[in-house]
Amino acid sequence: MKKIAVILCGSGFKDGSEIRESVAVLLALSRHGASVQCFAPDKPQADVINALTEEPMVGETRNMLVEAGRIARGAISPLSQLQVSQFDAVIIPGGFGVAKNLCTFATEGSKGKVLPELKTILEKFYSEKKPIGAVCIAPAVLALAFTEKQLELTVGPKSEASDEIEKLGHKHRVTHPSQCYVDTKNRIVSTAAYMCEAPLHELFEGIERLTEQVLALIP
Amino acid sequence: MKKIAVILCGSGFKDGSEIRESVAVLLALSRHGASVQCFAPDKPQADVINALTEEPMVGETRNMLVEAGRIARGAISPLSQLQVSQFDAVIIPGGFGVAKNLCTFATEGSKGKVLPELKTILEKFYSEKKPIGAVCIAPAVLALAFTEKQLELTVGPKSEASDEIEKLGHKHRVTHPSQCYVDTKNRIVSTAAYMCEAPLHELFEGIERLTEQVLALIP
Repeated sequence: MKKIAVILCGSGFKDGSEIRESVAVLLALSRHGASVQCFAPDKPQADVINALTEEPMVGETRNMLVEAGRIARGAISPLSQLQVSQFDAVIIPGGFGVAKNLCTFATEGSKGKVLPELKTILEKFYSEKKPIGAVCIAPAVLALAFTEKQLELTVGPKSEASDEIEKLGHKHRVTHPSQCYVDTKNRIVSTAAYMCEAPLHELFEGIERLTEQVLALIP
Repeated sequence: MKKIAVILCGSGFKDGSEIRESVAVLLALSRHGASVQCFAPDKPQADVINALTEEPMVGETRNMLVEAGRIARGAISPLSQLQVSQFDAVIIPGGFGVAKNLCTFATEGSKGKVLPELKTILEKFYSEKKPIGAVCIAPAVLALAFTEKQLELTVGPKSEASDEIEKLGHKHRVTHPSQCYVDTKNRIVSTAAYMCEAPLHELFEGIERLTEQVLALIP
C-alpha cells in the first residue's frame, strides 16, 4: 500500500487549507487505496479571517494543527513528526492560508520564504525522488523551496501569482482546472483548482488526475 | 435548473457540519447541474470542540453562519432568509453539530426539540411535497420535526441513535454507507455516512446516491 503524507495548515479558504481541495485529495487517495497521514504545523495561523466579511477577526488566534484537525477528523500529526522515510509521496492542498502560513508568498511573492521545517521536508522528498503534488496556490511553496531547480508548474491561467513563480526561474504552464500538469523531470504534479472559477466537480476531476499522477510517479 | 438549499451549522465533525459530508453534497449537486444555496443559522454554536483533544475550548464562541462560510466559501445566507418557495428540495449534511445546533438530539434524544426556524422550514418543504435529504445524524432532526408522520430513515447500523428515532414512532432501516434509503411516501432520503466507519469514497458514493434520489423525487 502506498503511503502518502498530506500537509494542511488550518481549515478554510481565506486563512487555512482550502476545505474542498483538501477533501478532494483525501477522496482520491481513498479511491486509489492509498494510506494517508495528515500533518500540519503546530503553530498559530498567520491570521483568522471571517469567511463572510473577509475581514480579519481581530484578537482571535487559531492553531493550524487544531483547525486542520477539523478536516482530518482528528487524525493528524504535527508537521515536526513527519518522517520522510515513512512516506512514498506528499501532497499539499491549496487555500490562501498556504500562501500565508506555509510560506510568505502572499505578502512577498517571489521574495517569500518557506516555513523552514517544511522546506527541509520538501527537500528530502525531492532528493529521495519521491513525487510531490501541489494544488491551487501550493505550487508557489514549491517555487520558493526549489529556487535552484527549474520547475514546471501550473497555477491555472497567467496571473500575478504565475508571474512571481516565473520570476524565480520556473516555467508556468496554463491549464484548465479539470487537468493537472506533470513535471516528470522533477516529479512534481500541480493542478489549478480554485485558482480558477470553475464548477466544483471540475476541480475534483483535476485533483483526481493529480493524485493518479502522483501515485504513478512513485518508483 | 433544479434549486437546492443546503443547510449547514458550523464547520467540523465535533461541533458543526461534517466537512467531508458537506463537500460531498456540494460535489454531487455540482455534478448533476443543480443550483445550490447554502444556509446556516446566524447564531452561536452550542459549543466549540478542539478537533484533536475532543475537549471543549472553554470561553470560545463561534457563529454557525460564519464558520459554515468556510465550507461555503462565503456563499451562504442566514437560515432566516430561506424562502421555501424558491427551492425544489433541501439537503442537510451531518456532523455532531447537527445534533447540538439544529436540534437537541445529542443531549435529549427522542425528547429533543428542533430549532424553531428550521422546523418551520422543514414543515413547508414537506407540505409542498418537496424532497428532503438528510446525511449521517441529520435524519434525527427530521425524526424530531415530524413526530406526527411515520418516517422511514437510516442512520446506518442499529444504535442508540436509531433506537431514539424508533421511540418517536419512525422505522429505522439498516444500510451500508455506500447506499441511501428512500422513503417515497414522505419524500425523504437518508444515508448513513459517518454513522459508520467506512472508507471516504464509500461515503461519497452514498451521498451521491442520496443526491440523485432527492433530485429524482422533485415533481
